[in-house]
Amino acid sequence: MARQAGELFEEFQELTASEFFRKNKQMLGFSGKIRSLTVVFHEFITNSFDAAEEAGILPEIKIDLKRVDKDHYILKHIDNGPGIPEDFITRVFCTMFAGSKFRNIQSRGQQGLGCSGCVLLSQMTTGKPAKIISGYTENGKLKGVQMILKMDVKTNMGLILDKKEVEVKETGVCVELHFKDVSYSLSEQGAYEYIRRTIIANPHAKITFRDPTGRKYIFNRATEIIPPLPKEVLPHPKGVTADDLIFMAKHTDKRRFRSLLTSSLSRMSTKRVNEIEEKTGIDLNKRPKDMKWEEAEKIVDLFSKMEFMAPPTSGLIPIGFDQIEKGLIEILQPEFVTATTRKPVTYKGGVAFIIESAIAYGGEAGRIVGDQRKAEIMRFANRVPLTFDQGSCAITEALKSIDWKRYGIKDLENAPITVFVNIVSTNVPYLSTGKQSVAPEPEILHEVRQSSMKVARKLQKYLRAKKAAKEEEMRSKIFETYVPIILKEAAALAETGIPEYEHVLAKVTRRAKAELLGEVVDE
Amino acid sequence: MARQAGELFEEFQELTASEFFRKNKQMLGFSGKIRSLTVVFHEFITNSFDAAEEAGILPEIKIDLKRVDKDHYILKHIDNGPGIPEDFITRVFCTMFAGSKFRNIQSRGQQGLGCSGCVLLSQMTTGKPAKIISGYTENGKLKGVQMILKMDVKTNMGLILDKKEVEVKETGVCVELHFKDVSYSLSEQGAYEYIRRTIIANPHAKITFRDPTGRKYIFNRATEIIPPLPKEVLPHPKGVTADDLIFMAKHTDKRRFRSLLTSSLSRMSTKRVNEIEEKTGIDLNKRPKDMKWEEAEKIVDLFSKMEFMAPPTSGLIPIGFDQIEKGLIEILQPEFVTATTRKPVTYKGGVAFIIESAIAYGGEAGRIVGDQRKAEIMRFANRVPLTFDQGSCAITEALKSIDWKRYGIKDLENAPITVFVNIVSTNVPYLSTGKQSVAPEPEILHEVRQSSMKVARKLQKYLRAKKAAKEEEMRSKIFETYVPIILKEAAALAETGIPEYEHVLAKVTRRAKAELLGEVVDE
Repeated sequence: MARQAGELFEEFQELTASEFFRKNKQMLGFSGKIRSLTVVFHEFITNSFDAAEEAGILPEIKIDLKRVDKDHYILKHIDNGPGIPEDFITRVFCTMFAGSKFRNIQSRGQQGLGCSGCVLLSQMTTGKPAKIISGYTENGKLKGVQMILKMDVKTNMGLILDKKEVEVKETGVCVELHFKDVSYSLSEQGAYEYIRRTIIANPHAKITFRDPTGRKYIFNRATEIIPPLPKEVLPHPKGVTADDLIFMAKHTDKRRFRSLLTSSLSRMSTKRVNEIEEKTGIDLNKRPKDMKWEEAEKIVDLFSKMEFMAPPTSGLIPIGFDQIEKGLIEILQPEFVTATTRKPVTYKGGVAFIIESAIAYGGEAGRIVGDQRKAEIMRFANRVPLTFDQGSCAITEALKSIDWKRYGIKDLENAPITVFVNIVSTNVPYLSTGKQSVAPEPEILHEVRQSSMKVARKLQKYLRAKKAAKEEEMRSKIFETYVPIILKEAAALAETGIPEYEHVLAKVTRRAKAELLGEVVDE
Repeated sequence: MARQAGELFEEFQELTASEFFRKNKQMLGFSGKIRSLTVVFHEFITNSFDAAEEAGILPEIKIDLKRVDKDHYILKHIDNGPGIPEDFITRVFCTMFAGSKFRNIQSRGQQGLGCSGCVLLSQMTTGKPAKIISGYTENGKLKGVQMILKMDVKTNMGLILDKKEVEVKETGVCVELHFKDVSYSLSEQGAYEYIRRTIIANPHAKITFRDPTGRKYIFNRATEIIPPLPKEVLPHPKGVTADDLIFMAKHTDKRRFRSLLTSSLSRMSTKRVNEIEEKTGIDLNKRPKDMKWEEAEKIVDLFSKMEFMAPPTSGLIPIGFDQIEKGLIEILQPEFVTATTRKPVTYKGGVAFIIESAIAYGGEAGRIVGDQRKAEIMRFANRVPLTFDQGSCAITEALKSIDWKRYGIKDLENAPITVFVNIVSTNVPYLSTGKQSVAPEPEILHEVRQSSMKVARKLQKYLRAKKAAKEEEMRSKIFETYVPIILKEAAALAETGIPEYEHVLAKVTRRAKAELLGEVVDE
């Protein structure tokens, strides 16, 4: 009765990436109606930002979300980036695993799945094609093209239903897509909140958003400074695996392994290479393609024991504490705000990262639950808001481990506070496939704690000063009212004249205030 | 200063699936050393089971895990399945998205990522090729071939380093792979526990496992019955989307949409099709490829309002309560065991599923923590153990919502109990991309509760009977000792003879026991 192998393989087939993700859309983050729409916003916004910044343009995005019917929306997303040359449009929007961001660079976008994933979701839920208008410069001339596209999932390629030249006023991309089975929500995980947080972490960007009720929100930029472009950084020796070395060796044009090492890794001088040669006994003058796995492994093993300078940090572009403060003020109009940017450090011995923390108090800080303002935590990785899987994230863990009472916040949960944390790295160690939570590397936990405690101390000082000012006002009123009377009565009793007391009174008041603030007064 | 679009697209490229997953191995479940190795075991075991069962063979697997060095292992996995024909070997092991399981069928395996994912991990961590021996029957003749393979990630294809005919004694596949950066652990999430749970849910399988210390575990089969092969079931109208209909219409050889509907969907009679035609006003005699999206949507919309018979359940093969009991007895040797298999029901209006629950008490049930036995929950989906993301799973949620005290279990956490739950469905609604937790659909929560409460009631009865037997023994001892004395003294006092009391004494004891058990005694 046993069947032969051949019969079982009659239905053997190969799927394209599009076919695979059509059956596994949750792997693209498309699970749940609210989350699916937030992911769509995320993909287009990050792509627009990355493109504009790479071209040296201050990003400006116009988003229009129309509700056609229950759970049926039309999204129009317009940016002012450099546009997409005609030849690349179908691949950007209709081919999965195609993209220009496969370098060791700090970037927001994912890996060639963003735009095409959104087109796939649109097509799967509405059957409607995508409408793309691209304005771009070619040989100094502004060109405009409009395409109506479908994705052919069987081939992972775009089908052009219609194409024409159009007149455009400037460069940029306009995407128009239909979606069903998604839902717009004002909740913490919804699309609106995603935009709000994005603007806080990207104060150089402007977003105009018309929501499904027709209400128009304008998120103005708080600064005109385009963040410097992160440089592509050579991998640090502590961060490479034997597989990486072999992969590099296979695809290099260098003639000797020695020069491959110095040209492909950071902190790798000729002196270090000689040291490696000596300690491993491997002839590094051999051709890269002759490098054996065992040798690569021996070298990586030595790397882990050698001391190297920390990786160059020119690849890391923090937002900057002053820019974060501007962003928070613009959006939250808080009573008090402070931010800090830590120095670059490394985790796992060789991956550089920077932590930035900020705290905003009062005004629109915190989130409204019922009729109360509660604390909110805003997590970011390379300026991108992380809105899901909060519980398992290193940022949340580190913040929860802080004893907030020490900083004068008796009940963090119920305080009108926004705590902001951004991790900057070319390799953010995400915990989950959805890239929504950061792994609890000890160094990351430590940095988040340190930077957040620093801003907490500043908030404490502000809150103390506020309290002190109030108390001082009351106290000095008491002194000012009663001291003269007491002195007068005492003088009368002692039958002497009233002494000069103004100077002493001022000194006492000053000392009382300093005490409240926990400061030392020079007398 | 703005850069032109063309420059930005100079580095535009397309990745293969292998290149993509090389950079995103966590999407294949490879995150963490313990989990990575468990996922490898999972992929090979499920593939071996599926293949053997499809061929009508009782699965037998031999696994040998050698530790070469810290975190460096060699895995040898041998099965007795039908083998893989020579022409398919490279694609099965070296091409991602290739496979034979893309049907609407209840199966354990993933979608063409399992074996090739393991080869990728092996290659990435050790640089070693895979060694595959396949024995298979071709035209009634047993053939054997051995291949040494590498995966070329740039092309997503296999490179054959060496190939030769070998002599084999029977059909089956032997895989030998090296792994580094993985770790063998006896913990709940480790490879050993994965095998133990697998055998409980697959009592027809035999696994011999030699662990890295050289200790050999033999998990014998508790039954010789091969589970019936699940049939491929046509999708239920309530489960299809407009996109599915259009997709079917595009790839059918039917001439009319009418016959496409009756032949592609379950519960779709000519009568129902006429009803659809009437209610939608769509001419269903048109050619499938002329079907418009709006029409497909109209039909799906109507489906959601129509009443259909539940989907056929021939596609669902539960383990069966008797087989589960056998599996639990074989592995846990419990003092008491009971299992139940519920009737098929549906969630989301049209997706059929079956819940099976079991409870084992005493013996090796529960897990040892320190020197105490604590309760353990074993979750399964289509007989595959779910070992991660326990917290967010519907099975855990439903079990936690049960008031165990009502069933005589005062402290579930600290009881020597194993609770077993298996969900059987062609479409298990997984919560996460890792397929490790089940979404809390209300119908699923309800079924898990009902079936688990049923086995809990049986355990309660057993525990009561056990207690009653003990108390009855004590009670009857008291009666037997004192009643004769009392009667004798009373008789002497009343100056009469001693009456026949044995009959009355037995009756009293019987009633006392029934009372303890909560039963009614016919007198």
